[in-house]
Amino acid sequence: MFKSASSVERLANRLARLPGIGRKSANRLAFHILKLTKEEAFELADTIREVKDKVGFCTVCNNISETDPCQICTDPKRTKNIICVVEETPDAAAIDKAESFNGMFHILGGKLSPLDGIGPDDLKISELLARIHDGDITEIILATNPNVEGEATALYLSGLLKPLGLKVSRIARGLPVGSDLEYADSATLSRALEGRQEF
Amino acid sequence: MFKSASSVERLANRLARLPGIGRKSANRLAFHILKLTKEEAFELADTIREVKDKVGFCTVCNNISETDPCQICTDPKRTKNIICVVEETPDAAAIDKAESFNGMFHILGGKLSPLDGIGPDDLKISELLARIHDGDITEIILATNPNVEGEATALYLSGLLKPLGLKVSRIARGLPVGSDLEYADSATLSRALEGRQEF
Repeated sequence: MFKSASSVERLANRLARLPGIGRKSANRLAFHILKLTKEEAFELADTIREVKDKVGFCTVCNNISETDPCQICTDPKRTKNIICVVEETPDAAAIDKAESFNGMFHILGGKLSPLDGIGPDDLKISELLARIHDGDITEIILATNPNVEGEATALYLSGLLKPLGLKVSRIARGLPVGSDLEYADSATLSRALEGRQEF
Repeated sequence: MFKSASSVERLANRLARLPGIGRKSANRLAFHILKLTKEEAFELADTIREVKDKVGFCTVCNNISETDPCQICTDPKRTKNIICVVEETPDAAAIDKAESFNGMFHILGGKLSPLDGIGPDDLKISELLARIHDGDITEIILATNPNVEGEATALYLSGLLKPLGLKVSRIARGLPVGSDLEYADSATLSRALEGRQEF
């Protein structure tokens, strides 16, 4: 594409390997980075280096963190005996942002996906069981994604956890707030009806 | 978002400032960069630095380049007396990729846009006139974008260039190859009819 500047071409190739960035977006981004001031571009480059240098994973909950254990695991204001199990860090971040949950998290690092060769041993499930074994956990909220693989993962986990005498719950699936019943898909509508609650 | 790792948060903020990357994409990208191997992430950071260190602008055509004049301006196989005028480097790269044009380019560095305060003096128009004055240029192809501002820029340039006794042309506007007449907008259809050519 940018024959006249092979380093821009290389940057575009590098960016195109990131998820959700197609060839054209990568070219556009590379060109924009070229137009940034030197300070801005170097700041971006340095932040990328910093992220890899500083950030690791919390050995308790598997969340990304610059400290170990992470800020959430060590926060004295959070309830220690409820664990919300999610697939990835951004899921935990989204739940935390909603400010309706003040317990602990556990990040599985993925979801069961036999087609991609991802089985229970590839997720942080034994670590979750160890946390339950060691601590005073009363409830596990399964907050994997509401799609086929997320549901399968939740089902598998509930099978493992229920015999331990814990309260095991699944986040509600239903109509998103602000959405339109007319345009909802049937699967969501079925779930919304099944999960109806009394006033 | 990523309370537990402020450098990831900073990276996401930085990425969100790039065009076409919203808040959510920036979070996703930052998280993905975190998951890259150290080598891959450092390679990305270094390429960003390299781009700003190495790449400048060709003093002849204003294209981005690691050399001055750029590879296109110095290529002996290219026709020197036709200049294709475009708004930005990616436009020239797109035309070059189509392999239907083997002349020179001139990158304006933008388009006339009075609402954004961009007038003729903000574009590389005097440089274009100097090239025409100095060289043996026979044709100028105006390849600014086919939108309101691009058309205005082309119209302005044709007004400047025609009195110089050059052939001044505008790229054709019409139905894109592979498109469907039924779904074409009226402006495009009008242009396609106006620009019809005899068999």
